[in-house]
Amino acid sequence: MKDFKDRDFKNKEIDENLIEGKNAIIEAFRSGKTVDKLYVLKDANTPAVQSVLREAKKNDTIVTFTDKVRLDHMSATGKHQGLIARVSAYEYSEVEDILENARKKDEPPFVIICDGIVDPHNLGSIIRTTNLVGAHGVIVPKRNAVGLTSVVVKASAGAINYTPVAKVTNISRTIEELKKEGLWFVCADMSGAPMYDLDLKGPIGLVIGNEGEGVSRLVREKCDFTAKIPMKGDIDSLNASVAMGVLSYEILRQRLNG
Amino acid sequence: MKDFKDRDFKNKEIDENLIEGKNAIIEAFRSGKTVDKLYVLKDANTPAVQSVLREAKKNDTIVTFTDKVRLDHMSATGKHQGLIARVSAYEYSEVEDILENARKKDEPPFVIICDGIVDPHNLGSIIRTTNLVGAHGVIVPKRNAVGLTSVVVKASAGAINYTPVAKVTNISRTIEELKKEGLWFVCADMSGAPMYDLDLKGPIGLVIGNEGEGVSRLVREKCDFTAKIPMKGDIDSLNASVAMGVLSYEILRQRLNG
Repeated sequence: MKDFKDRDFKNKEIDENLIEGKNAIIEAFRSGKTVDKLYVLKDANTPAVQSVLREAKKNDTIVTFTDKVRLDHMSATGKHQGLIARVSAYEYSEVEDILENARKKDEPPFVIICDGIVDPHNLGSIIRTTNLVGAHGVIVPKRNAVGLTSVVVKASAGAINYTPVAKVTNISRTIEELKKEGLWFVCADMSGAPMYDLDLKGPIGLVIGNEGEGVSRLVREKCDFTAKIPMKGDIDSLNASVAMGVLSYEILRQRLNG
Repeated sequence: MKDFKDRDFKNKEIDENLIEGKNAIIEAFRSGKTVDKLYVLKDANTPAVQSVLREAKKNDTIVTFTDKVRLDHMSATGKHQGLIARVSAYEYSEVEDILENARKKDEPPFVIICDGIVDPHNLGSIIRTTNLVGAHGVIVPKRNAVGLTSVVVKASAGAINYTPVAKVTNISRTIEELKKEGLWFVCADMSGAPMYDLDLKGPIGLVIGNEGEGVSRLVREKCDFTAKIPMKGDIDSLNASVAMGVLSYEILRQRLNG
């Protein structure tokens, strides 16, 4: 780790994925970039804001109205005109690309569903493990979750170049659609059966919940199984990316065994 | 995650474990606090620096000589007098406490050895998993590794209150001593046998290497087994805390089955 000395005492990461002001943002939309989120100054009603909001609506972009203090804090240039966009550092794939990845390898699909992961180090680490465990892709929701920011890309340690990540509007609906493709869904939850006792060998989707809340009720109800990781300690839960690693390696172990 | 909105665009963590100036640092030493590292202005030869260096020598503290730019950057007060100390946010235990933890539970010892983990999120996550997998403690080296900083404590999600963490001068020597207590040592490395094929049921030490370099040669040579996590993907390695989670859950699986 050649940058260890510096990392020892500073943790600030520069976010190179924010673009500011009307012209730069309109340009990003028109060139086909994925805008993960648009921050707009509350109560601003300038022509610049109006035209960016029209573009955001066309692209079904998440819009957050916020105050000047926050925009000033986010701004690198100081000239945001009440408009800052968070652009994805990487292009998303489609759910179909994930299924195609499995078909190409002639393997039963093995898909990771992140139901609201918010920590970029966790999402990056999950993409990294998805690649190494031989799963075919990651699905993340559009809302209330981290997207493919530069921190996520870095934490994926290169896996983002091989492992498709798709973004969907509604995780429950995507699970319904993937069930039609023959996938079974298992979610990680303390209330489930021990993971060793479940048959996890077929076409499978593994659902990992949000760091604080776990898997949401609506999504859990769509799952066919609930798997429990054995916990022998004093605290409540594993880190989300570690839980994903332990469960996905149990799936791989069962697949390797037959 | 109630702080999600803020975490969305800033990542700076305030380090409340740095103390500055002669008097505060001498006080920390005398009150028995663990100083993980002392930063001293290069070529400074003031009486303040000399008396702090004497105290550091008595306590066998790691000293790093550095330049004014770096000290100024680390300093919160601007009045560091060429002296900044990183104090541990938590007290360390002794290796003996870890063995005692196993004896109390009437279990064969299961110890995690971190051979140079530098990322505080990884160390925190490893302590968290150590607790949940039912292992008895974590051993970290004094040099070239992160200590119990506030970020580590936070990332441990409370596990630090239950799981002893001991700091040692020389990992290889500690392994030798633990072998006399009947422990076998397994390290994670790509060159090893598949983890499923090894018998990991007895008193065991699991060695996890540095994020970039893996387990160091000297430490690897002390290990009885080398275990490989199966890798089906395109990139080289798992995140260190995920690798630790996968291997330690394989150890737990074998213990539960046997």
